[in-house]
Amino acid sequence: MKIALAQVSPGIGDLKSNLLLIQEKIQQAITQGASMIVFPEMCLTGYPALDSLTQPSFVQKSFELLDQLILDSLNHDLCVVLGAPSPSSGIKGIFNSAICFSNGKILAKHDKFLLPNYDVFDDHRYFDSGESITTFSFNNYQFGILICEDSWNHPTEPTIYNTPYSPPSFSEPLDAIFVLQASPFQVPSQRTDQLSSVAKTAKCPVFSVNQVGSYDHIIFDGQSTVISSSGDIHHQLESFKEVQDVVDFPLDPSPSFSTTDDTQRLHQALIRGIQDYVKRSGFTHVLIGLSGGIDSALTCALASQALGPEKVHTISMPSRFSSSETIKAAKDCADLCRVSHEVIPIDNLYKEFAKQLNYDEDALNTPSLAFENVQARIRGTILMTRSNELNSLVLTTGNKSELAIGFCTQYGDMCGALAVIGDLYKSQVYSLSEYINQTNTMIPEFIINVPPSAELKFDQKDSDRLPDYAILDPILKFILEEKKSRQWIINKGFDKDTVDWVLTMIQRNEYKRFQAPPVLKTSAKAFGPGRRYLVTSSQFSD
Amino acid sequence: MKIALAQVSPGIGDLKSNLLLIQEKIQQAITQGASMIVFPEMCLTGYPALDSLTQPSFVQKSFELLDQLILDSLNHDLCVVLGAPSPSSGIKGIFNSAICFSNGKILAKHDKFLLPNYDVFDDHRYFDSGESITTFSFNNYQFGILICEDSWNHPTEPTIYNTPYSPPSFSEPLDAIFVLQASPFQVPSQRTDQLSSVAKTAKCPVFSVNQVGSYDHIIFDGQSTVISSSGDIHHQLESFKEVQDVVDFPLDPSPSFSTTDDTQRLHQALIRGIQDYVKRSGFTHVLIGLSGGIDSALTCALASQALGPEKVHTISMPSRFSSSETIKAAKDCADLCRVSHEVIPIDNLYKEFAKQLNYDEDALNTPSLAFENVQARIRGTILMTRSNELNSLVLTTGNKSELAIGFCTQYGDMCGALAVIGDLYKSQVYSLSEYINQTNTMIPEFIINVPPSAELKFDQKDSDRLPDYAILDPILKFILEEKKSRQWIINKGFDKDTVDWVLTMIQRNEYKRFQAPPVLKTSAKAFGPGRRYLVTSSQFSD
Repeated sequence: MKIALAQVSPGIGDLKSNLLLIQEKIQQAITQGASMIVFPEMCLTGYPALDSLTQPSFVQKSFELLDQLILDSLNHDLCVVLGAPSPSSGIKGIFNSAICFSNGKILAKHDKFLLPNYDVFDDHRYFDSGESITTFSFNNYQFGILICEDSWNHPTEPTIYNTPYSPPSFSEPLDAIFVLQASPFQVPSQRTDQLSSVAKTAKCPVFSVNQVGSYDHIIFDGQSTVISSSGDIHHQLESFKEVQDVVDFPLDPSPSFSTTDDTQRLHQALIRGIQDYVKRSGFTHVLIGLSGGIDSALTCALASQALGPEKVHTISMPSRFSSSETIKAAKDCADLCRVSHEVIPIDNLYKEFAKQLNYDEDALNTPSLAFENVQARIRGTILMTRSNELNSLVLTTGNKSELAIGFCTQYGDMCGALAVIGDLYKSQVYSLSEYINQTNTMIPEFIINVPPSAELKFDQKDSDRLPDYAILDPILKFILEEKKSRQWIINKGFDKDTVDWVLTMIQRNEYKRFQAPPVLKTSAKAFGPGRRYLVTSSQFSD
Repeated sequence: MKIALAQVSPGIGDLKSNLLLIQEKIQQAITQGASMIVFPEMCLTGYPALDSLTQPSFVQKSFELLDQLILDSLNHDLCVVLGAPSPSSGIKGIFNSAICFSNGKILAKHDKFLLPNYDVFDDHRYFDSGESITTFSFNNYQFGILICEDSWNHPTEPTIYNTPYSPPSFSEPLDAIFVLQASPFQVPSQRTDQLSSVAKTAKCPVFSVNQVGSYDHIIFDGQSTVISSSGDIHHQLESFKEVQDVVDFPLDPSPSFSTTDDTQRLHQALIRGIQDYVKRSGFTHVLIGLSGGIDSALTCALASQALGPEKVHTISMPSRFSSSETIKAAKDCADLCRVSHEVIPIDNLYKEFAKQLNYDEDALNTPSLAFENVQARIRGTILMTRSNELNSLVLTTGNKSELAIGFCTQYGDMCGALAVIGDLYKSQVYSLSEYINQTNTMIPEFIINVPPSAELKFDQKDSDRLPDYAILDPILKFILEEKKSRQWIINKGFDKDTVDWVLTMIQRNEYKRFQAPPVLKTSAKAFGPGRRYLVTSSQFSD
């Protein structure tokens, strides 16, 4: 028989559209000659549906639509495995379930038992835990069902859980296991290894179906995968695309798949992240402040590739501190990316602010830190005004290294709807820029080679105020992603004062990040809802 | 014997200072002649310590300090009941525990079994659940221990949990129950009713000790309470203050306590919220943009009361649309609040932006929505620049009604570190203003009586764009706090189109709130980390 894998992109909380999507995919599976179809985790509501799941009328409606889908199945021979909420008698009132139905009847229901509650995940906020493993038979085959985290046993370091978690295991022999997922993209990924481990432990193939598409800060790559009983990849659906493939079952012995490298996947993830954020916000066009530096150049190249150059407008806003080379680099970048470009000099506004705030001519040429920031805020105001006029979203251009240490101006260069490269360290900004230029030069060589500068003063360089990015980025990664202690990092050979400075700056700038736009998450730990500290908590540094 | 109740305000993540605080309070209890001392939930780390609890070196250090405190107890006769993390063999690695120790030995350890994971609470993110009830004996008395949520059985409507939760009950007769709490302020409060229910069920007195102080958006009111076995309040510690009272045990038959009303408590909560945010951020002074409207006037009055008038600076930034009455009202308000006041007209900057952005003279007098916002952003830039110069925090002045429907300018009037009245509906803004004026007129009568206007155009009134606040506020409360469905609200008699407009505006403005400053939480559901929706999720409105 054939099994259809529906790698879809449901709307968050959009029950009616998701019902139509599911019905359409069931029809397609029938046309494809499939006997079964498997959807991702919580496909009916989209994942994460967040606090919509605390609204009783929303939950009730989802139950009704599920009942309707089960009733619909009287009209076809397909067995459907669908992720949706189902009623629980626990304190939350719902499970995160996989409902398996055919011919108007529920064959099995699996309730997710391992609810993730780390990073961006808040499953315990919404769901009661299921208790056990579920299996069912269809067409004389015996299948198991797991939902996302259920299938992770976390054998690798650094562990997500403090103590290794041993999942309940299937006690009977199975012909295959379905894993319904809403598993976010990250590089490097451990997902395939996890699924392979499940297949080898249960000695049967695994069919994993993952949600695809980007939702605010969370990008789901899809990359639904069939793993053979020996743990090898047998089939993989195209990443970052809505696709419905059918796979013969039992599995054909010859595996067929292609792999992509991490930088290529990172590139695809950011493209999809931009596309979906813009579309789901009801926009088509974006606006970028192009400074002539590498961060805005990369953001511009990505936006041009994601939306088409005609949907991207750039504005260069030079001040007296902008070098002619930088101004030209911004224009060159816009040309290479084939996007429209406008120049709005800010010096008259800068002078007018000086007048109103009683700064003299000297202050204009050697501004204090307070007055430096006025330039960034003038630019922010111009971008936001143009954005309102042109009905375009502003993309911010800050990177993770800057966000970490607060090397950015609140309500200035932080103005915007989406921080496209906010989870990329400066070193990744360079490597991704070079990757993009390999195919087609979009980022002028000058921009890649010139030492980075904020140009808020004459002859300013990032290196005047910050450690070299070659030092800063690894320290940040040890602290943010690997949770290493201060002493561990110093023992690695990093300068004590530099490490202390970085720890202090991370803590001191929580307030800026609290008001930052959504950051597209591409690492194990991005700034945003997956990393939670109070603005006023104390820095711990043992 | 005497029992000391240590209503303290530990620093979040500030282990070393908290150790000193605990040691100091133990000394004080000895001086007070107490035999026991009870501290709040997670007193050693502060609550909520959030992702500090995922840092292994932080957790390890907290274990070490706890061991040190237990060792210290060899030097005195006090029995200490302290909230702190303790090791667990579960996947999170720690419990949220109450450790009871005396003479160098642990007498009992209770692990919180009901972990709240709703609203602002994320206990499942950090802790494994305890399994059972803990009791211990000291001085021939038998005591039970509960931690915060453990003591809530949620008998009231609207329920926090979907299904009523029945807590494990004590099987043996007890002389008293200690409840260690970190229970946030809200009006109206159900906390005393919950504790009373615990006392009546167990037929013994309850000693609850609550954390006090404000942490970013979360205000803890303290108000630690002793409840008699009949369920009545026997003693209550002063709210919003660090206090250590001792209570005779067994309880004296005559209860002694005073009560305060909700508006008075709301006022106290906001005062404490401002004080702690400013202090914990390392500042002493604040800056407020005073428009001549009621929101900024109330914020100014609260700041003046919280910090002292000499710590508050106000700036009025009139445009061509500001009436002379409004400008005078702002000045009058500053005078009544005895705070310094500066006037920085923005018309020249407004004209300069028009010039750079190619707006003509007509546009200056009848600005588009896009250009209207420029005024708010000029003001934001001025405030932030002055804030950087004066080393003051900017307080934002928006209310909950505005934040709900997006009647505010991103990077304009939303600029600032703390949204003081961001959880107050417009109607509460008026009632709190009148409450403050009862003692001492700080808000000019003109401001209270004039119809509200944003003054971004000539002759503009809030009522041109919004439903009357008398209609809007109850609809918002039904949606946000009571989770009522669209149809339920319409059935209540509200206009269908108005309800739909409100639902749409709430959804459409998630993006603004995502970047809003921390909002002091005073209701059951404030905007901020306690309310989680994606910016790009769909509006559900059945």
